[in-house]
Amino acid sequence: MAAAKFDVLTIGNAIVDVLAQTEEDFLVREGLVKGSMRLIDGKEADRLFEHMGPAQLISGGCAGNTAAGVASFGGRAAFIGKVADDELGRFFRHDMHALGIHFPATPLTDGTPTARSMILITPDSERTMNTFLAACQELSPADIDRETVEGAAITYLEGYLWDPPKAKEAFRIAARLAHGAKRRVAITLSDSFCVDRFRDEFIDLMRTGALDLVFANRHEVLSLYQTSDFETAVSCLERDIKLAVVTMSEEGSMVVADGRRVRVPAAKVDKIVDLTGAGDLYAAGFLYGLSRGFAHEVSGRLGSLAAAEVISHVGARPVESLRQLAGQAGLAA
Amino acid sequence: MAAAKFDVLTIGNAIVDVLAQTEEDFLVREGLVKGSMRLIDGKEADRLFEHMGPAQLISGGCAGNTAAGVASFGGRAAFIGKVADDELGRFFRHDMHALGIHFPATPLTDGTPTARSMILITPDSERTMNTFLAACQELSPADIDRETVEGAAITYLEGYLWDPPKAKEAFRIAARLAHGAKRRVAITLSDSFCVDRFRDEFIDLMRTGALDLVFANRHEVLSLYQTSDFETAVSCLERDIKLAVVTMSEEGSMVVADGRRVRVPAAKVDKIVDLTGAGDLYAAGFLYGLSRGFAHEVSGRLGSLAAAEVISHVGARPVESLRQLAGQAGLAA
Repeated sequence: MAAAKFDVLTIGNAIVDVLAQTEEDFLVREGLVKGSMRLIDGKEADRLFEHMGPAQLISGGCAGNTAAGVASFGGRAAFIGKVADDELGRFFRHDMHALGIHFPATPLTDGTPTARSMILITPDSERTMNTFLAACQELSPADIDRETVEGAAITYLEGYLWDPPKAKEAFRIAARLAHGAKRRVAITLSDSFCVDRFRDEFIDLMRTGALDLVFANRHEVLSLYQTSDFETAVSCLERDIKLAVVTMSEEGSMVVADGRRVRVPAAKVDKIVDLTGAGDLYAAGFLYGLSRGFAHEVSGRLGSLAAAEVISHVGARPVESLRQLAGQAGLAA
Repeated sequence: MAAAKFDVLTIGNAIVDVLAQTEEDFLVREGLVKGSMRLIDGKEADRLFEHMGPAQLISGGCAGNTAAGVASFGGRAAFIGKVADDELGRFFRHDMHALGIHFPATPLTDGTPTARSMILITPDSERTMNTFLAACQELSPADIDRETVEGAAITYLEGYLWDPPKAKEAFRIAARLAHGAKRRVAITLSDSFCVDRFRDEFIDLMRTGALDLVFANRHEVLSLYQTSDFETAVSCLERDIKLAVVTMSEEGSMVVADGRRVRVPAAKVDKIVDLTGAGDLYAAGFLYGLSRGFAHEVSGRLGSLAAAEVISHVGARPVESLRQLAGQAGLAA
């Protein structure tokens, strides 16, 4: 096995976030489930945009955010996702390149726009996402750059890739290529509704050994095993996969590995502003630590630290250097 | 004179800000003067964008920011400026409408893009602006909606409008229409380099009575009268115009009216993050207060409060309700 060229490759939907502060009333009027992600079409995207408040545009997408986090720790990151050859696509690509993230993109030129997610931030800092996948629907096996996958110590895939049909196939191919090169494959279950849509397939991927590491939050792991008992869910999880991380918001996280469970506390946040990206950045810290051979607890602490940074401001990507913050916290990074 | 339909109409360059955190080194390498605004062409905009860090897009432009501030105080605001019929133009228009700002726009369709300003924020929170005016070059007398101008208690113009030649003519026409309807006309001198480019014209506008109120910061008023002595500059200013406001960063501001000078303290800020928009939001508070007939000192305090809000986060428009903040501060708003 050749030395890895990248610490972490993430594959996911390439999305520009359209973030706006929103009153609770607006969610009620629109019939939106707070904290969830729903998929919308272009027409609904235009309609919702017209009704939502003043916004800011920040590159996002779960896997893109995680790559940004890995890069901010000083890790060698790569990203695969589909943008269009338009203004937002150029903006997204710019941000990846500016972070030093390898992004072997072939932008779409058929007129389909770059994906956007309208993210409504309520006064409790919770985010409710409305995603128009657009160009992301066209991510296909042809976009899976073999050299990049084989050169990455860990390939990290988002569960949301199960939504666009061609992306699902791209996901499977990437996982096979990675394992063929004796690399590790990780997944995030993305959200409980996503788990609900693809439960059997996710469990099958775990049981057949297509995945080495699963990230899930409490809602997702409960949804995965269709139980309301957390202990039951975690027991199922540890039977199905050798390494799993369950994030639990302000209660921190739990690393489940080889029959052992390690609890990791959440990091302190002065003021929570916007929860968008918390899970993505937790994954960034953990994956970075894992790629560097740190103990699971240290990797979990790097995850907590990254999550704390990203929820202290609007937008799902770090604005402070995570490498510097890790150094200040006494975590080898 | 009919009752005003709008408290404040602002006319200026319609710009989307592309904001990025930047190390001091980058400014040095690029030969940029910290704190300034320079005009660049499309080619230079592309080149600089490629080299700058990850960014966020937030609607900006001095006059647009001021209108957003007036609206946030609960004032009836209108804005005139030129966007293109493209993604950024739609984003800018959306933000104005979402704030309830009347924006009688005819977007440009000749392929010229919407203006953008690449704003580099250094660790000291100072901002250095690189503006590609693009569609703003096409603001012309035809865009000056007579009904809107005549219906606004105050028309506020930015000095930067002196850069695009047709906009200058539009400015003059707007000022005449406003005075014809017995309304007030205000200007911001925008920046000291702008003053340097158009010194004689600005002084002429003041002396001929085309303006009723001038906003300037310390650098601008020194540049206007080509002196390094602040007292000399202020004395000249009060001879040339009946109402002027000089902003002095952390030292607050001074309202100069009819031979009297009123000092207004700056408002407390926990942590300064990004100075972009400080002057624009000060003007919003002052203009809102003036339109409601408040004492100059109260209007100045509203300006200080709005400036303090906007420098506490990235982006040049308020994210908290200025009306609410004013209420909490015991200022009638």
